[in-house]
Amino acid sequence: MSQKDILLIEDNPDDVELTRIAFAEAGIAQRLMALSDGVAALDYLFARGQYADRDPHELPSIVLLDLNLPKVDGREVLQAIRDNQITRTLPVVVLTTSTEPFDVEASYALGANSYIQKPVDFEQFVWALKQVGVYWLILNRSRED
Amino acid sequence: MSQKDILLIEDNPDDVELTRIAFAEAGIAQRLMALSDGVAALDYLFARGQYADRDPHELPSIVLLDLNLPKVDGREVLQAIRDNQITRTLPVVVLTTSTEPFDVEASYALGANSYIQKPVDFEQFVWALKQVGVYWLILNRSRED
Repeated sequence: MSQKDILLIEDNPDDVELTRIAFAEAGIAQRLMALSDGVAALDYLFARGQYADRDPHELPSIVLLDLNLPKVDGREVLQAIRDNQITRTLPVVVLTTSTEPFDVEASYALGANSYIQKPVDFEQFVWALKQVGVYWLILNRSRED
Repeated sequence: MSQKDILLIEDNPDDVELTRIAFAEAGIAQRLMALSDGVAALDYLFARGQYADRDPHELPSIVLLDLNLPKVDGREVLQAIRDNQITRTLPVVVLTTSTEPFDVEASYALGANSYIQKPVDFEQFVWALKQVGVYWLILNRSRED
């Protein structure tokens, strides 16, 4: 994975597809990698298991993280990212349907950089994800840029 | 300060003015409060000194923080925000001219949510700040929303 890349950790295929549409409109679709559960995400980020051949120092520019994931949930994925020396300052945006203030607070306390509630409406979803992509890929600087 | 507000901590009056122009274009200029040094910023956030009458629980939605500030510099302001129980999960975007990888890494390690390099070009500066305003005020959820 080269620099300026987006790792989407999302188990809902519809949301993955809408994110691809949004990023295509923003001209950044080719940079999207999607994984559907927490184990695959951590294996990828830490270059373990089926991703053992990866260089663990080659990190995406941004991780978009759903909170409710199979196997290992988003909160645990975030905690593991922050506990690892290589990934501890990697930007992570929580992307979820939850509007619970507890989830917002807990996500920031665990070290999320941003918390975005997924819009239910198709057009609003695509608009929001487009803004997210432009912000984190074009405007924000991460250590990897 | 009501919810959905922006606190800009910036000592360069030109940059404050450009930020106002950008936020006016995004329709959010009325929500901008600018302070020009680190002491004033911390007094404001912690409701001390000239801001002792403020409710310290009423926080802005986002803090835009220059790194090089008079009196108390941006790194120390960020550290103080993260060390305080009330403000520790307040979103902070570092906004600086520095492109030093050390500054990027140190800002994230201190708990910055995002790191934006100020564009030198006038139009690019206004475009970038407009994106920043829209992202953090309209899309992002903070604890205060």
